[in-house]
Parts: sequence; C-alpha cells; structure tokens
Amino acid sequence: MQEKDVRQSGFRTTQGRLSEPLLASLDRHRSDKIREKLHAVHAFDKAHLVMLIERGFVSRADGVKLLMALRGMEADGVLESRLAGGGGLHSGEYYLTSRLGPDLGGQVHLGRSSADLSGVSRRMLLRETLLDVLAKLNALRSAIAAMIPLHVGTVMPAYTHGQHAQPTTFAHWLAMWETVFARDHSRLRETLERVNRSPAGAAAVTGTDFDIDRPRVAHLLGFSGTLANTMDATLSNDVFIECMCGVALLAGNISRLSEDLLFWASHEASMISIPDRFCDTSSIMAQKRNPYVLHEMRALTVEAAAALNTAIGVEAGTTGQSVLARKLSEGAAWRTFATLGARLDEVVDLLPSMAIRADRMRELAEGNWSQATDVAGALVRECGLAWRQAHQVVAIMMRYCEEERLRPGDVTVGLVERAMREYGLEPRALDPGVLRDALSVDVFVRRRTLEGGPAPESVLADLASLRRQLDSDTEWLDAFVEGVKAGETALECAIDDILRAA
Amino acid sequence: MQEKDVRQSGFRTTQGRLSEPLLASLDRHRSDKIREKLHAVHAFDKAHLVMLIERGFVSRADGVKLLMALRGMEADGVLESRLAGGGGLHSGEYYLTSRLGPDLGGQVHLGRSSADLSGVSRRMLLRETLLDVLAKLNALRSAIAAMIPLHVGTVMPAYTHGQHAQPTTFAHWLAMWETVFARDHSRLRETLERVNRSPAGAAAVTGTDFDIDRPRVAHLLGFSGTLANTMDATLSNDVFIECMCGVALLAGNISRLSEDLLFWASHEASMISIPDRFCDTSSIMAQKRNPYVLHEMRALTVEAAAALNTAIGVEAGTTGQSVLARKLSEGAAWRTFATLGARLDEVVDLLPSMAIRADRMRELAEGNWSQATDVAGALVRECGLAWRQAHQVVAIMMRYCEEERLRPGDVTVGLVERAMREYGLEPRALDPGVLRDALSVDVFVRRRTLEGGPAPESVLADLASLRRQLDSDTEWLDAFVEGVKAGETALECAIDDILRAA
Amino acid sequence: MQEKDVRQSGFRTTQGRLSEPLLASLDRHRSDKIREKLHAVHAFDKAHLVMLIERGFVSRADGVKLLMALRGMEADGVLESRLAGGGGLHSGEYYLTSRLGPDLGGQVHLGRSSADLSGVSRRMLLRETLLDVLAKLNALRSAIAAMIPLHVGTVMPAYTHGQHAQPTTFAHWLAMWETVFARDHSRLRETLERVNRSPAGAAAVTGTDFDIDRPRVAHLLGFSGTLANTMDATLSNDVFIECMCGVALLAGNISRLSEDLLFWASHEASMISIPDRFCDTSSIMAQKRNPYVLHEMRALTVEAAAALNTAIGVEAGTTGQSVLARKLSEGAAWRTFATLGARLDEVVDLLPSMAIRADRMRELAEGNWSQATDVAGALVRECGLAWRQAHQVVAIMMRYCEEERLRPGDVTVGLVERAMREYGLEPRALDPGVLRDALSVDVFVRRRTLEGGPAPESVLADLASLRRQLDSDTEWLDAFVEGVKAGETALECAIDDILRAA
Amino acid sequence: MQEKDVRQSGFRTTQGRLSEPLLASLDRHRSDKIREKLHAVHAFDKAHLVMLIERGFVSRADGVKLLMALRGMEADGVLESRLAGGGGLHSGEYYLTSRLGPDLGGQVHLGRSSADLSGVSRRMLLRETLLDVLAKLNALRSAIAAMIPLHVGTVMPAYTHGQHAQPTTFAHWLAMWETVFARDHSRLRETLERVNRSPAGAAAVTGTDFDIDRPRVAHLLGFSGTLANTMDATLSNDVFIECMCGVALLAGNISRLSEDLLFWASHEASMISIPDRFCDTSSIMAQKRNPYVLHEMRALTVEAAAALNTAIGVEAGTTGQSVLARKLSEGAAWRTFATLGARLDEVVDLLPSMAIRADRMRELAEGNWSQATDVAGALVRECGLAWRQAHQVVAIMMRYCEEERLRPGDVTVGLVERAMREYGLEPRALDPGVLRDALSVDVFVRRRTLEGGPAPESVLADLASLRRQLDSDTEWLDAFVEGVKAGETALECAIDDILRAA
Repeated sequence: MQEKDVRQSGFRTTQGRLSEPLLASLDRHRSDKIREKLHAVHAFDKAHLVMLIERGFVSRADGVKLLMALRGMEADGVLESRLAGGGGLHSGEYYLTSRLGPDLGGQVHLGRSSADLSGVSRRMLLRETLLDVLAKLNALRSAIAAMIPLHVGTVMPAYTHGQHAQPTTFAHWLAMWETVFARDHSRLRETLERVNRSPAGAAAVTGTDFDIDRPRVAHLLGFSGTLANTMDATLSNDVFIECMCGVALLAGNISRLSEDLLFWASHEASMISIPDRFCDTSSIMAQKRNPYVLHEMRALTVEAAAALNTAIGVEAGTTGQSVLARKLSEGAAWRTFATLGARLDEVVDLLPSMAIRADRMRELAEGNWSQATDVAGALVRECGLAWRQAHQVVAIMMRYCEEERLRPGDVTVGLVERAMREYGLEPRALDPGVLRDALSVDVFVRRRTLEGGPAPESVLADLASLRRQLDSDTEWLDAFVEGVKAGETALECAIDDILRAA
Repeated sequence: MQEKDVRQSGFRTTQGRLSEPLLASLDRHRSDKIREKLHAVHAFDKAHLVMLIERGFVSRADGVKLLMALRGMEADGVLESRLAGGGGLHSGEYYLTSRLGPDLGGQVHLGRSSADLSGVSRRMLLRETLLDVLAKLNALRSAIAAMIPLHVGTVMPAYTHGQHAQPTTFAHWLAMWETVFARDHSRLRETLERVNRSPAGAAAVTGTDFDIDRPRVAHLLGFSGTLANTMDATLSNDVFIECMCGVALLAGNISRLSEDLLFWASHEASMISIPDRFCDTSSIMAQKRNPYVLHEMRALTVEAAAALNTAIGVEAGTTGQSVLARKLSEGAAWRTFATLGARLDEVVDLLPSMAIRADRMRELAEGNWSQATDVAGALVRECGLAWRQAHQVVAIMMRYCEEERLRPGDVTVGLVERAMREYGLEPRALDPGVLRDALSVDVFVRRRTLEGGPAPESVLADLASLRRQLDSDTEWLDAFVEGVKAGETALECAIDDILRAA
Repeated sequence: MQEKDVRQSGFRTTQGRLSEPLLASLDRHRSDKIREKLHAVHAFDKAHLVMLIERGFVSRADGVKLLMALRGMEADGVLESRLAGGGGLHSGEYYLTSRLGPDLGGQVHLGRSSADLSGVSRRMLLRETLLDVLAKLNALRSAIAAMIPLHVGTVMPAYTHGQHAQPTTFAHWLAMWETVFARDHSRLRETLERVNRSPAGAAAVTGTDFDIDRPRVAHLLGFSGTLANTMDATLSNDVFIECMCGVALLAGNISRLSEDLLFWASHEASMISIPDRFCDTSSIMAQKRNPYVLHEMRALTVEAAAALNTAIGVEAGTTGQSVLARKLSEGAAWRTFATLGARLDEVVDLLPSMAIRADRMRELAEGNWSQATDVAGALVRECGLAWRQAHQVVAIMMRYCEEERLRPGDVTVGLVERAMREYGLEPRALDPGVLRDALSVDVFVRRRTLEGGPAPESVLADLASLRRQLDSDTEWLDAFVEGVKAGETALECAIDDILRAA
Repeated sequence: MQEKDVRQSGFRTTQGRLSEPLLASLDRHRSDKIREKLHAVHAFDKAHLVMLIERGFVSRADGVKLLMALRGMEADGVLESRLAGGGGLHSGEYYLTSRLGPDLGGQVHLGRSSADLSGVSRRMLLRETLLDVLAKLNALRSAIAAMIPLHVGTVMPAYTHGQHAQPTTFAHWLAMWETVFARDHSRLRETLERVNRSPAGAAAVTGTDFDIDRPRVAHLLGFSGTLANTMDATLSNDVFIECMCGVALLAGNISRLSEDLLFWASHEASMISIPDRFCDTSSIMAQKRNPYVLHEMRALTVEAAAALNTAIGVEAGTTGQSVLARKLSEGAAWRTFATLGARLDEVVDLLPSMAIRADRMRELAEGNWSQATDVAGALVRECGLAWRQAHQVVAIMMRYCEEERLRPGDVTVGLVERAMREYGLEPRALDPGVLRDALSVDVFVRRRTLEGGPAPESVLADLASLRRQLDSDTEWLDAFVEGVKAGETALECAIDDILRAA
C-alpha cells in the first residue's frame, strides 16, 4: 500500500485492514449521504484542531497550515468541497490530506473517532433544527395571540365526541391552541437543553490516552458543557429519541388543528374558507378546490410517528450494536424536520388569512341544542331542583324535541313542565324570560366567566397570561441563540489568534 | 320515568334522553372498567363537594350528610363500594343517591362533567404512577452507584457494532447507566410537573355558569395549579402522550441494559451469571436455566412503544372526537406502568446479586485485539508518525495477525516494522517495552484519565457528580410527595371543618 | 426432593434444576395467564396421549386410565379443573399426576415440550378466532348485499380530498364496501390455510428420538398437515404476525367505514341517523346523543395496529430468543380479536338499522357543483372542444359561480360562453337542454353505466358478481369448519376405540 | 387566460379555477416527485389513447399524431422528457400539448383523472417491485438449498430463550430458512395477484359517461382484470398496505437471520466468519472488522415496519380523505423496496461465502449440556421411569454438574444414581454405554429421524420437498412475467396496427 492511496480513500483503503473493498450497496459513508451534517463536521474539525494545537499535539507551524487550508475551503464552499472529496465524516481529513499531504492531514483525527464526529454533528444539527422549530412555533403563537381579541364574540359550537356540545367562541378555541403550543415550547426547550451537550473527545467509546481538553472543544462549538461518561456520550442515543418525541407531539397537535379546520371548511359545515394559494384543483372535476395545506398538516402526525418509531426501533439491541443503523433514524428525522418546518410556515400564513364565517358559526351553535346545559342550570337556580333532576328533566324534553322536530324557538315553559311530570316531579313554575335567556348562546358564553372559560373577559385574561409566557419564552430563545453564536465567535477568534501568532 | 330508576342507572336511564338501552358491548362505563381510577374519582368527589359547600351551592346541612356518607363509604371500602354500584366515573353520585335519595345525591355533579372527572382522575393516577416510577428509578440509581467503586478495576471489552472495540471497566459501563437513568429522571420530572395541573371545573368543555372555585379544588387535590383554558383542560391530551414518551424512553433503556446482560450471560460470553430466582427451567431439557428476567426486561420496550403508539393514534381526529377511545390508550398505559414497575423492582435486585466473572471479562478484553488503538498512539508518540499513518500501519499489522493467527503475545517490534514497510514508510525504531505497554489492557484503561474516561479516578470523579445529582433529585422527589400529601391533608381538614361546624 | 412435591409444582419444583423459586413477578406460567388456550391444550393432551398409546409408548392399561381421567375432567369442567391446578400449559400433566400419581401422570409429556404445547394451542386458537371473524365478515357482506338494491336511486355526493367530487349513489358506496370486505375475506382465508398446520411433535426445537407419529396428531387436531422442520415449527412465528396483518387490514377498513358514517351523522351533514342503542348521552349536556358505536369502530384500527406492532416487535432478535415475550403479543392479539368480534356484530346490526336521509343526500349532491364534470363532457360532445379546453372553460365558469355566489340553477348558456371567451375560444352554441341535463345529478349517475359505475344497472351487475363470490366463500368456510369438526370426531372416536378395547 | 398558458401549466393555470398559484411548499405534483412512476404513467398514456382511438373518441388522424409523438418521446428518453416538462401524472398531456397544441394534446385525458393515473401507476410499480423481490427471494431459496446437503453433519447448538437447547445441525437451521422463505413467497404471490388488477377508467371516483372500454386498457397494461367498483378502484388502498405487510414480514425474517449470524460471528461465539467485502473498519480502532451487511439486514425490519405503519396511518379518515398523503406512504414504500432489494442481493452472496467453523460449532454443542434431554430419554427406555421422573432425575444431576463444575465427560452412572436417590427413587441400573451414547451430540442428531428432525435423512427428505416447492414457484413466477410481457406486446402491436392503418 502506497501512502498516495490513503489520499484517495483514507483508512478504508483496501489492503489496509481489509482485503476486499466494501460492497457499494453497503457504503453509507460518502459525503452525499450525510450532506445535512457536513457543515457541523466542518466546525468540529476546526474546534478539534484548535484544541490539539493549544494542547501541543499539533505543532503551531503545522496547525497554521491546517487551519488556513480549512479557511480556504470556506472560500471555495464547505459543502461543495466536502461533497467533492466524498469522505463523509472524514471529509476534512481527506481534504487536508489531499491538499497538504499525509504528514499534515493525517494529524487532524488524533484523539477522536467516527463516533464522536457523528455524535457532535448530530447534536449540532438537532440544535439547529430545534432552534428553527422553536422560532417558528413562537411566530405561530404570536399570530394566534393577535387573532384572539378579534374573535371573543364569534360564537360557535364546541364539539365533544364529534357532536355539538356547548356554545363557545372562536377566540376560546384559539386560546386553547395558544396553550397547547406553549406546552410544546416548554417540552422542546427542555429537550434542547439536553441536546446541547458535547460528546467531543469521547472518541470511539473510551476517549483517548492523549491529554485532550474536552470542555474547550465543547465551548468552541457552543455547547453548554460536555457529556461526561465517554461510553454514554457515543453509544447512548435516548436524547435523539426524545427529540423525535417532541416532534411527534407537536406534529400531533398540528394535525389535530388541521382536522378541526378540515371539518369546518367542508361544504357541510361552511364555517371557514381557505384561500386559493393553499388549495389545488382537479384534472377532471372543474369545480374542485382541495385544501392541500390541511391534508399536508394532517399527514404530519403519520410522518412524525414513523420517524419516532424508527428512532426507537433502531436503538434496540446491545449497547453500541446499532450505531450504523442510526443513518436510518437520522434520515427519517431530517425529512420530518423539513416537513414540520414547511407546515409551521404555512400555518402561520393560513390562520390569519382564512375567512371566518361568523354567521354560519352562530347558526350552527344555535340550531342544534348546544345550549341545553344551561336550561338545566336554570331549573336548579329557579326551581330548586337538584342538578341531576334538572338534567334529566331537560333530557326528557330534548327527546320530545327530537321526536317532534321542535327547534329552540319552539320551547315553552309548558314543554318543560311536561317533562317534569314525565320525570315524576310536580311541575314548578319557570319564568319564560329565564327560559329564553337559558336558550341564548350569547348569554351562555357571557356567563362563563370562570377561569379559562369562554366569556370575553376570561379569554382576554388568559391571553394576557399566555402573552407573558410567550414573551418570556422568546427572551429565553434569543439568549440561547446568543450562546450558540458566542461559541462560533470564540472558535473564529481562537483560529485568528493562532494564525496571528504565526 | 320514576325517580327511583335514577337511583339505579342515573342519567343513562332509558327513556331519559334515549329510547333504547346502550348495547352491552358498547358499555365502557361500569366501575370495573375504570377500577384503577376509582380512588381518584373518590378524592375528586370529596374536593368538589367541599368547594360546592364553601361556595354555597350545596347547603351546609346537605353537605354534612353527603360528606358523612362519603366518609362512611371509606369505612366500607371505597373500591368495593364503587365496584358494587357500578357507576364508573359517577359511582359517587350513584352511591350518594342510593343512600340519601335524589334530592341530596343529585347535587354532587353540579358544575362538573364526565370530562373533568375523567381528566382529574387520569392526571391523579399518572401522578401516582410517575411518583412510583421515580422512586424506583432512584433506588436503581442508588444500587448502581453502590456497585461502581467495587468494579473500577474490572477490565472488560467495550463493544461497538457488536464487536470488541476497546478495553474498559465494568464500573465505566455502570457509570454510563447511572448517567442514562439520571436523564430519565430529569425527563420524567419535567413531565410530572406538567401532569400536576388540575382540569377540575372545566366540566364538559366550557366550564359552568355556576361561580365555582377552580383553584380551591386544585389545591385540595394536591395539584400545583389549574389548567386554565377549559377546552384545553378537557380535550387536549398531549401530556398523556408525553408520559408515554417518557415511559418508552425509560423502557428502551432498560431493554438495552437487558440486551447487554443477555449477551454477557450467554454460554459463549460467560461474563456474568444470573441467580436462579430470575430463571426458569424447561419441561423437556433438563439442563435449562432461562434468564426470564432479562427476557421480560427486553420485551418492555415493545410494550411501551405499543402503548405510546396507542396514545398517539387515539388522539387523531378533530378536537374532542376521540375522548371515548382514551379508554384504549389508558388501558395500555396502566398495563405498561405495572410492567415497568415490576421490571424496575427486579433490576434493583438483579444487578447487585448477579455474579461478575472478572477473569473471563479480562480474557475477552485481552484476546481479541481491543488494545490496538493504543499501539497506534504509541507510534505517534514514539515514532513521530501522523495519526493516520500510525493507524494504518497498525491496521496492516492487524491483517497480518488475522491471516497468520497471531495473538497479542506474538506481536514483536519486527512485525510493526514489516507493516511500516508495506505501508510505504521507512521503519522507525519502537521500544519493545513501549510496545508491551501499548498491548496491556490495564495500561490502556489506566491511561484514560480524561473526563468521563474509564480510568478509576475518572470514573470515581464522575460518580461523585452523579451522586450529587441523585441526592438533589431525591430531595426534589421527597418535596413533591410532601406537596401531594399536603393537598390530601388540606382536603381532610376542610371536611373536618365542615363536619365540626355542623 | 420427594416425588409428592412433583405433584404440586411439577418440573419447576425448587431443588430440581434450580435452587430458588422463581420470583412471583416473573411467573407467567399459571393457568390463569393462558386461560384462552386451556381448551386447546386439553385437546392436544388427548391427541398426544392417543398417539403415544397407539405407538406403544404408553401401555394400553395406563392409557385407559389416563384417558378416562381426562374424560372425567371434562365432566367437571375443563377450564375450572385446569385453572384450579394452575399448571398452565402443563395443567394436563398436573391434573393427571395429582389424580393418578407420577408413574402414570408423568408419562403424558413424553416426546413433546412447552414449545409445541404453546405452538399447537396458539394455532388452534388462531384458527378458532379467524373462523369466527370470517363468519361475521360474511354476515356483514350478506347484510350489505341486501341493502344495495334498495339504494340504487339514492343519490349522494362522492368525496375526494374530503370535498364533494361527483354525484354517486348510496348503493355504489355500499358496493365498494362489499368489494372491500370480499378482499378481506380472501386475505384471511389464505392466512387461515397457513395457520392450520401442526407443530405438534416438534417438541422444544429438534423433535424427539422417540418414534412418534406427527401426522396422526395433526389429523386428530383437525390440522391440514404438519409443519415439517421442527425448528421452524417451534421458533418461527411469522404466521402469527401475518394474522395480525389481516386483522389490521380489516380493522382499518372498519375504521374507515366508521369515519364516513361519523361525518354523515354529524349535525352539519345530517345524512344518516344512528339508532339510540348505539349511542350514549352526557352527564351534563342534556341534549347529547354520542354515537359510541362509531367511535369504537374508529378506534379499532389503533388497537389492531398496536397489536400488529407488538407482534412484529416481539419477534426481534435471534431465532428463539423471544419465545417468552410472545405472551405479550398473544395478549394483545386475543384482546384485539375480542374487540374486532364485538365491532363486527355491531356493524351488522347498525348498517341496516340506521336511517338514511335521502333528501338531504340529494340536496348536498346538488348544491355544491359536484356535477361540473359532466358540463365539460357536454362541451366535448356538443361543441367539439378537446377535453382539456372544455374542462378549463368550466373551471373558469366555476370561479365565476363562486365569486358571484351563483347556484346550479343560475347557470345559463350565456355564462358558459363568457367563460369560453375568457379562455380565448370563440363561443360555440350549447343547447340549453343539454346544459340542464349536464347539471342534473340523476342524469349524471344514470349515464355512468360503465363497469363498476354508479348507474343502477352497473351496481346491480356488480352485486350479482359479488354475491357469487360470497356464496363461494361461504361454501369454502362451511367446508373448512367441517374439516375441523372431522378432526374432533376422529379424536373422540380414537379415544372411544381405546377405551372400548380395554 | 390564453390557451398558450395551458401549454405551460395545464389545468393548474392560475385564473383557471383558482385565483392564486399554489404555494411552492405544497406543490407535490412535479414529475421529479413521482420519478419512480413516470414510465408506468407513460404506458397508461399509450394504452388509454389506443382505447380512445379504438372507441372513436379520438379520431384515427389525431390518434396517429398523438401516438407518433409518444413514440418520439421514447426515442428522446421517456424519463428525461417527462422530467423536463414537469407535469407529473399529467406529463404526457403536457408533452403532447406543447408539441401538438391544445386541440390534440387536450384530448388525451378524456375519461380519466389523476386518481386512476395514480392508481394505475402505483399498481404497475408495485407489480414490478414485487416481481423483483420474488425473483431475488427465489435466488436466495436456491442458494440455501444448495448449501443444505453440505452441512447435514455439521453439528451445532440450537437455541431457545437465547440459551443452548439441544444439538442440531447447520443444515437443519438452513432448512428452517428454506421453509420460512417459501412462506414469504406464498404470501407475496397471493398479494401480487391482488395487486395485478386495473383501476384504469375509474377516473376520479365514478368513472365517466363516455363509453370507454376498461377491460381493453387493463389487458394492454398486462393486468389480469379490472377492479370493478370505481369508488373502490380509486379510493380503497388496502392492497397497498397489504404489500407493506408482506414486505414487513420478509424484512422481519431477514432481520432474524442477521441476528443469528451476528451472534455467531461475535468473537465470543466464533462460529462463522464474514468475508471482508461485507465489512468495514474504524478510523481509530485499527483491529476493527464491523460486519456491516449484518447490521444493515438487522435494521431492515425497522425500516419496513415504519413503512407499514406509514401506509396504515395515511389511510385513516373518511373514504378519499387521504389521497394526497399517499405521497408519504409511497415514498416510504419505494425507499424500503430499494433497501430490501439490496439486502436480498447481499444475502444471496453472503450465505455461501461465509466461513463455517464446524469445530467450534461442535465444541459449543458438546460443552454446555445441550444433550441432557436424551439422558432423560434413556432413563425412560432403559430404567422404565415415567418421562417426568426421568426428566427430574436429570435436572437434579444437572444441578450437581453446575455446582461441582463437572463436564459431560465426568458424568458417570453413579452420578445418575445419586440423583435418583435425591429424587426419592430406588436407583436403577443404567448401562454405561447407553449413558455414553445419550451424551453424544452426534447420536442425538442421528436419532432424530422424525419428520422435520435434524437427522441427515430427515433434512434431505425435507429438502426434496422444499425444492419441489421452489421449482413450482419458479414456474409460476416465469408464467406471471410472461403475462405482463404479453400485455406490453399487445400494447405495442395495437399501436403498430393504428399507425400502419394510417
């Protein structure tokens, strides 16, 4: 074996350790197979080199040449240069070796391994994608918060078991989503804190016997600290699964949101209308407007659940058995993150731009007995019935209304009394005005001033609290991003210092 | 319909709202179908009543009778009494109505619904089960921490891709698990904080127009606060899924642990031996000792992933569509929690009691070239080779050893030089003592003093930090349990106050 | 160890092979944990004994006593007797040993093992449950077939992307389901053929060195033949997973059916109404009628998918690694089969008894432009436009109608011409009668006489073919059941013969 | 809107039906997103055109121009031409319209829709991929069949619960796989029969009112017939899920195979060795040979299960709700099929080329008491003990051997007698030769001549039957491929006939 061969294919050169080349169908190592992570590998190459130089494992003179070459790669384009070389996780070493020869290029991998290269770049990419998701999530929360005050009087039916339950408002429904997405933020934030720890220097599994500086590399890459135990740092992957849990939860929420909208956008419900840019038509049915955005949002939960299950499934087996198969779970993850990002952008655009048909919403809320609960409440207050008695009297009355096709406007005090009799109670007087009030969907909503209820003042009070949460989350996110950038700056400064000293 | 019917079957009485009885195969409501939650329903019945009395919706006189009846139920046995009545979530109302009549019993459900009954009891049960899991998890962490100092010198192979990678120690492996389970604790703790919020008073979906006191009920049930938005409180269920994520992650870790042990306990590896009480034998093969405990631990991840997917799957659809189907996801959850609890108990017993065969571990670590990394390191340090050159020289030498069936004891300086020549380098002198040292698994381990490495001092430093974390987590858990108990005490005191005032 | 101990706990007696009793939490062997399979174990006990007697491994004299004891157990109740003894798969041996002593009872297990006991009983139970599912599936097909002729004129919208697509009929929709369930039958039938093979005699994994007669036992248990390779017979479990695939597919279809019905039963659609016996009401909302049956049908796919994933997940690992964990996948399977059976019974009851609101169906089909396709067709036929030109002209016209809130009755020849002009074509004359016809949903349906189309004659022709398939499937199923019964008869005859000869 | 716009973007032109262009992130329609299906779309374009011409809906003169243009596209490259145009499912129409103008190109879509375009091409691609899988599966069966006769004497341990169970042979294990893969073939064959039915002409959901000839198009595309009901043909997708079930089952089997090999290839087992071309090495650990092929095979079940769950998940919802989301399930399917194909190729190469270490296999089989079963058998035959008595005596003896670290060679008749005494039996004489025989793994295997047992004659008899099955399956597959080719030929002949007539 000639050294020049090494320049081509590095440690995988045939007749090094192995006597045959790896089958092409098994080669998972080329740069184009880890394209998403190449920029993170680049950062690790630089930070690791800086540390090796600072510790004296690479001489200042050699270090300057190596760092300058990496700076040169940046001028040419990191992605392009690394794709051209094809060395995957080792594309930095390949690049340096082919430019500067094996005496120099062969030094960069001292004290590390594919395992920490893989782990560092995985965590850096997870950090990036999670930061992106959190920013978009906050944009969504902000968009919803802006809509709430506009719809505190937009009465609509709330559904349970898919049936009309009680009147509420569109603002109350929006405030639910504001709450849901705040929880998603809190989960992903905690996950991100666990992601942002450095496995660098753990090498293959036991670290190295060279006296490297793990905290230094962690700092230069913007991590909040190291993952101490080196076996854990390279072989445990529960935090990756945890990321996919958070994504699956958020995806499930977005899908649920789309299901509500899909139903409301149906011809049968006609409660909202989706702008054309979110829709497609048909090659045969000239009338068609298919709300693609909602179908895509709906499918998100399927994609995210599959990615989560892939992540769980891949990790089965003894410690370290499955590290190769992580290519599979990472592929699913990066695809899902891309889909999630697109959906978040779309929904931020969609919600404020869809048409709200308030008249139709009210018509539905009024026309299907969603007010019945408060008739029972009135019987408790006005007639002194125990709750269950009142509820059953109204239940019997509802059966009459269904059988006799009566509408809310047809309900009289006499009908209530008839139901009381069937139930076995002496009829008690009910004021017709009270009954009319109890059948009003507006009064229904206005009376529900309890904490978290649909009355305008309750919704607005809740909104104020949710906005404070959003402000505080935004601040946290900004500070986190600053922290990452500080690492990037520290790395470039360290390189500058080394080059300047030369 | 006579009132007496109500005493039997409550609001589901035929000829109330509906004209036919529900098909038996669709009846999910009987107490025996929610057996796990009945004690939590009982607590909510009491807390809700206290609040209704305090707010004046139930008179003091009636309230005293109702509370005394519930205290009487406790004397008879809450579970038995509620199972006997069969009313499920409404077993309290049924019990009170059958004892005290509809005028009294019919008051207890004022201002709430099946939805918050279901939500409150679900969260109380999740809280209980999570607290149990966390306590057992800390017992496991404690057991592992106690083992680590005993095994800092127990050299064994570390595996990657299922192959011998490098020498490490059993203590280093144990410290990985101590780290892993600390992460599980941190996740489940955050989840528990999100679980411990009260949906009480959210009723069906919009709360109620009676002026109830939601924070009071939350306090009496030991919750840290309310879930504000009433639609979110009853219809969102992401926190339930989040619980199953945490369980799936912990289950996956336990399964991975079992896979390591299964392999080590095989005849082929013979590194550990499992005591008989964890094993079963065969009805035909008289020699058999099957380590059941490990197989059960291994299967845990399958059960937990299925429960997680059930939880995700059930929530698909519009908001509130799926509330009935939560019976399915809860069933899977309670089964999985029970299994998880059993496995945690067993593994706390298993780890300290299994036999560690240190000689065999060392034999394996020495016999299969796991030391090769440090030969390359020696070539860097002693011969001035760049890392990649050194690594490739050793790789070629490893190929010789495989082809010529050499053992580590057969490696000579001459063999190294032969590999240097094949690689294309002028042979450089290597001290035989250095080579011998580089081939020693003990030296390998002792030299890895980096942060998180397998050297005894590194492992013990890591252990000290992990123990501090465990202490702090234990304190947190104790305080949390105190908080829950404070709620229970407040509830009983409030009842005592009402009864005493009568 | 005294022989009398054996009578209590058989081969698991402590101080036999093992020195400690198995932890209670790990004991999966008690009869109550395999309750579903005990009757199948009983049949295998009998068939195995008959074969051992016929082959001379058990003497005629001993055999008579043993068989008479098993007949006695039947008089007492097989389930009760085996539950009382607690021996699980070995409950037969335990029963016989405790009644007749170890000299006799100890003979029954010669030449078999827990593995074939488990495999035989699993396959017998799968056969039973699949036969039950197939019978219910055919009842459903029969119920649907009877409804089709009644609804060939019931026009309704067909939906794609959840939007109105084109007019069709309720009969056309029913014929789709008849087709779908015929496919489910064909799949499950093929699976059942693969299930119905006997692992008996494969013992633990290599069979036995006693010269047993595997085909004889297979015949006596109603199997169509043996599973030859003994390792495959005991350790492969793909056919079990295949069963759960078939169940998941059928469950998915039933869930889809329920989703259609749920939407149609909504207040917004109001196309059908579900009888009260399939519904429940609410403890707070007196008007509520929640169609529980549809929610349960809908959840079926989640339960079945979890059972399928459990089946797949459990089998991971080396051959035979996971046999203990099959308790988990079997538990999920039996639960799912029970749910599936209940749902099938309900849907057979539901479909013919739900109210079809034909007027509302037609109103929806007419009111939302589902006819637009045929206006384009008319332009092709009458005006000589190429299809795409015609389609685009109508698309433009549809945009006008939406913008100007026109209804189908408002469409004039002039409007068509305006659209032609916007599209860039010279307007061509269209007969107003042709246009009117093209806008009729009835004409739309009647014209679609192509194979499989919604025209009454097409639907009825399709129905005739589907009925032939159903008849043929019913015949096959009857014959299969006969085959199983013939095995049962042969077994009892063989026992009678042995007893008679004594 | 000018007609020329249509040439660019067809029916999706803005200001046709819709007033805004679709958001780029929602555009799933470009040709590059359905690249895998474009050749099948091409075939459908041709077959549909032939039928339209034959039925007179396209004039002979126009038809000749259109068919010649499609033949011209073939000369240029179908994939390239369709990718260039970007029209996805409608790339044929776009191509023809841009070449020949809207009067001609606009005719091709008469009587069909995106739905049947999608369904036809999906089924054609499934057919192709399944045929490829079946061919590779048969190559694998053939490779295994060839190995079996070489290994009928290669004794090795069979494992249950991951522990040594009984001696068997490598040939017996191979015969299990031959059986397993024969079952996979039988399942996939049945699935393929269900796949090979044509939805063509079902158009969007109700077919068309033009009198098209569905069987003719089905024939020209090589389908065995049509899917009659047009709603079923376009909107049901259970057969797709069924394909993924078959893939998941086969993938599970391949993964199990890899788990066996991974364990055997471990240093601890050392029973086999994997050639270098299936392995990779490490960037740090110079000794490493990681058997990548086995890790990839192992991960296959995770990928296939995720694809299956995606297929199931996507279909949730009302009929036709999810058609857009099928892009997701198809993407997962095509990826998984590609992976499966690669793995099948590799394993066909791997099995015959891996080194079998027969000595080590025998050593393991002999050294860990896997023979114990036959000692019990000997006690039954020679000493007249009932099976359970014999089994328990040997179990006690096994406990002695473990406690006293005895090896099989240390077992004496005296030891057996000691165990008899502990069990409570009078010792009975056992011939030392019989005991020696009972402890021989070779005798163990040779005696198991029962159907499907490991004795050489049993394995060879089983092989003969499996080979007959393989021959018959190969014949069936050849005939099926012929049928598909006959469709292709018929299509080209029909085109030739039309062109020739012009």
